[in-house]
Amino acid sequence: MSAQSSLELFWISGSPYAWRVQLALEVKRLPYASRLLEASKGDLKTPQYLALNPRGQAPTLRDGDEVLTESLAILVYLDRKYPQVPLFGAEARESARIWRLISEYLSYLDRPAGRIITPIYNGKIAEQRDDIRAAVPQVHAELARLEDNLGAAPWLGGEAICAADIAVYPFIKSLLRAAGKEAAASLDLGLLPFEARYARLGAWMQRVERLPGYERTYPPHWRQ
Amino acid sequence: MSAQSSLELFWISGSPYAWRVQLALEVKRLPYASRLLEASKGDLKTPQYLALNPRGQAPTLRDGDEVLTESLAILVYLDRKYPQVPLFGAEARESARIWRLISEYLSYLDRPAGRIITPIYNGKIAEQRDDIRAAVPQVHAELARLEDNLGAAPWLGGEAICAADIAVYPFIKSLLRAAGKEAAASLDLGLLPFEARYARLGAWMQRVERLPGYERTYPPHWRQ
Repeated sequence: MSAQSSLELFWISGSPYAWRVQLALEVKRLPYASRLLEASKGDLKTPQYLALNPRGQAPTLRDGDEVLTESLAILVYLDRKYPQVPLFGAEARESARIWRLISEYLSYLDRPAGRIITPIYNGKIAEQRDDIRAAVPQVHAELARLEDNLGAAPWLGGEAICAADIAVYPFIKSLLRAAGKEAAASLDLGLLPFEARYARLGAWMQRVERLPGYERTYPPHWRQ
Repeated sequence: MSAQSSLELFWISGSPYAWRVQLALEVKRLPYASRLLEASKGDLKTPQYLALNPRGQAPTLRDGDEVLTESLAILVYLDRKYPQVPLFGAEARESARIWRLISEYLSYLDRPAGRIITPIYNGKIAEQRDDIRAAVPQVHAELARLEDNLGAAPWLGGEAICAADIAVYPFIKSLLRAAGKEAAASLDLGLLPFEARYARLGAWMQRVERLPGYERTYPPHWRQ
């Protein structure tokens, strides 16, 4: 972290939205002041924080006088302001591919994955069992598409890491963490061991996890 | 439509996703060949169409050898390839604002609006009444934020039309059309007359509807 850095990131541990921004900052090798908030202590609802982020959510990025919210908008901002390493492609076709992948994640995987993750974390597996079961094939269908999409390329967009990798990885990591909980064992999610079913996606996740600075982005409460 | 145009848009009438692309093409004054598909005739599931759009959805844009899917990715593509009129802002702060607005629409308004629109169109109001009622205050909260956001500016991003206007308008128009259905009268949605409750948003919608070429984008089956 350099003294002259003006970047300041407000985040909470385990938020995949915040994780996107942390990964982007590491990939771009941008030093930043880290402000770890705790939702359970009300940190997101203080008047000071609500002045930065009126919805009381994380992440928020401050860059000098600029205050940025919404993780994808922050990725766009960082890419425009600090173009090295580029995350959204060099030309129209590449950008469209990256945004297609992000849009497909949002439209087809985010909700079904959430229908599995949320009840596991909230201890509502029994109540939600039917809904979880209904979501499982949708999740596998989308994971299979991502697996196909990787093909021989190391990253979702091709030869270089891009915003799609960064936008999708934290959510799949959260899904796999949920799937590994003891309470989830009875659900037959078919997600673990992940590499056995999705060899390319498994290797892709390891690639993300070998990025310089990755360890700094890992949710601290997951280590406990 | 010019003879040398290589742009070809596959769309279905009333799809807000397709409408985004139609509006972007009009704002950029790009001529295109219009391919109106009918989902009820199976046009989205032919082998020929699935070769272009493996999910069997609309829109799909063909630009010479390029095939583009996912409406937001298509807007990004068009803006990179045909920079006039710019839709995603000139610099980092402006782009971030536009993507923040689009992300907020996706995260907070799209789902509750869909919980109102879908049962009205599908004749499931009686079955879904409680869920519709729960969605109504969420929709109003987001519309109120958009109303505030407009302030004195004519467009969501400020002085010029941008991708946020184009991405959000078709969904609000769909919502208001649903709200105007006779079957919806008993729901007390509080959406109509829209201008009475949301004066700035009402004026903003009229601004969209006065765009040159708007009439070409209006869903043909809505006129019947």
